Amino acid sequence: MLFDALDLGATFVFAISGATQGVRKRLDLFGVLVVAWAAGVAGGIARDLLIGAVPPAAIAHWRYFAITIAAGLVGFFASAQIARLKTPVQLFDAAGLCLFAVTGTEKALAYGLNPFVAAVLGMMTCIGGGVARDLLTLEIPTVLRAELYAVAALAGAGSMALGFTLGLPHIPVMVFGAGLCLFLRLMSLYRGWRLPSSKYFKETD
Amino acid sequence: MLFDALDLGATFVFAISGATQGVRKRLDLFGVLVVAWAAGVAGGIARDLLIGAVPPAAIAHWRYFAITIAAGLVGFFASAQIARLKTPVQLFDAAGLCLFAVTGTEKALAYGLNPFVAAVLGMMTCIGGGVARDLLTLEIPTVLRAELYAVAALAGAGSMALGFTLGLPHIPVMVFGAGLCLFLRLMSLYRGWRLPSSKYFKETD
Amino acid sequence: MLFDALDLGATFVFAISGATQGVRKRLDLFGVLVVAWAAGVAGGIARDLLIGAVPPAAIAHWRYFAITIAAGLVGFFASAQIARLKTPVQLFDAAGLCLFAVTGTEKALAYGLNPFVAAVLGMMTCIGGGVARDLLTLEIPTVLRAELYAVAALAGAGSMALGFTLGLPHIPVMVFGAGLCLFLRLMSLYRGWRLPSSKYFKETD
Repeated sequence: MLFDALDLGATFVFAISGATQGVRKRLDLFGVLVVAWAAGVAGGIARDLLIGAVPPAAIAHWRYFAITIAAGLVGFFASAQIARLKTPVQLFDAAGLCLFAVTGTEKALAYGLNPFVAAVLGMMTCIGGGVARDLLTLEIPTVLRAELYAVAALAGAGSMALGFTLGLPHIPVMVFGAGLCLFLRLMSLYRGWRLPSSKYFKETD
Repeated sequence: MLFDALDLGATFVFAISGATQGVRKRLDLFGVLVVAWAAGVAGGIARDLLIGAVPPAAIAHWRYFAITIAAGLVGFFASAQIARLKTPVQLFDAAGLCLFAVTGTEKALAYGLNPFVAAVLGMMTCIGGGVARDLLTLEIPTVLRAELYAVAALAGAGSMALGFTLGLPHIPVMVFGAGLCLFLRLMSLYRGWRLPSSKYFKETD
Repeated sequence: MLFDALDLGATFVFAISGATQGVRKRLDLFGVLVVAWAAGVAGGIARDLLIGAVPPAAIAHWRYFAITIAAGLVGFFASAQIARLKTPVQLFDAAGLCLFAVTGTEKALAYGLNPFVAAVLGMMTCIGGGVARDLLTLEIPTVLRAELYAVAALAGAGSMALGFTLGLPHIPVMVFGAGLCLFLRLMSLYRGWRLPSSKYFKETD
């Protein structure tokens, strides 16, 4: 119950990021709703297709449509207000990231994938939406360029997959995974932790 | 029989739109054929993957390859003539839109999805090809930005899903759904009906 | 055994092309690894999803992650050296192309698809990685614009599917298919063989 609420909450925040980007790119109302939907559910759909969970949860249950369309409408009519709520949105997004990492990994493990692969699919659940959002609006995906975002998700998902493999109790392992993910994401946001990019083409291009 | 002919006809017209765009973007012959193929079948493939109809009809039957390749060749060698046929192509495209909306929704219902989700998948059948065409040629998908296109498809698909749920007879419901879709699309083309886009970023960007 | 080694070798080379492109686009380390992974395995994943081989081999076996991540690290830290190795990389890429064409076609045939479709899926195995790499870094896919690349793959895959259909012995048919693909690719690289592009928009745009 709490779990479902968190899952829908995370979907909502991811969808808001899609709606905001759609508005910025001057899509019409329908386009904004599509990008909101894609940002909210594309990661979970990709994971479900890859593990053979068909139809994907985000297609089978209408509540994912409802929540992403609601987010799209909020984003469409309240872009100005959202822009001013930057910090809460970032914090909620970080929470959604951790949640998707944990739930995505767990679902992949439940479908019998090995722990390493399950952690990658957990991360894919987190970043798929942002990649779809950016491609639909013709941006190089942010997640490929900046900050500890996917890496935070991967660390959380990986620690969880490792803990399950070692037979540790589930709840503490999941809490630790989510916490590690959240810690890394917050360090990136507020301390500027990030990965290097290659020096090679910096001067030549 | 009539049904199959219409289905292939719609695929052909959608593929023509892909071929024309490929030519405009100066792709080579192979590239034009790929974009024609994607424009013709990507919507149906996405729908089939999501409902678990694997392999997708457009992969399992060679006639979809044949018709899209034929459209690609026509588009490659006769771009100038097609450009002059704007009105008939638009009308045929509108007919294809209605047909895909109805057949896509029906297939999703047949796979046991609920009516609301089935209508969304019907719409996805219509717009998937155009989205694939635009992404492969690096354009923000037209369908996200302009005119009543997806919305016409959604209205037709939705009315049909609703009629089926209420137990109304199938043929009249499908005719009504297709007619509603066609009406909205033609109003958009000839009366300029469209959705709003957000005012917010108009001045600030 | 030899087969597996060749398969992983081809995946590695394709992944190198992704890593190099990621570095050129100034992605961070994570982004480079993602694009390397996508370039290495996207073609095989697309094929497996379309034929219903779920989870796709590239997801089910961790060695595909290992080899693409290794390629990504090499690409990230040794871009300068790779740029100087242009000829060997092109040759290895041509070898990978032939191998993917043959193995992709064989897998599609094994899943009961008809020979024509199987050849198309064999080609898709070859080009899917490059398309994913280019879309993630916002380029119009090279394979749609230039050189005999996909066509070489299609010729090899098609000749093989034809040979199997005629009941010819498997090994010679596969060797012939791979050889035809390699020949066409090398002619394109060193003799400039290519497909035409349409003249129509050359002057008007």
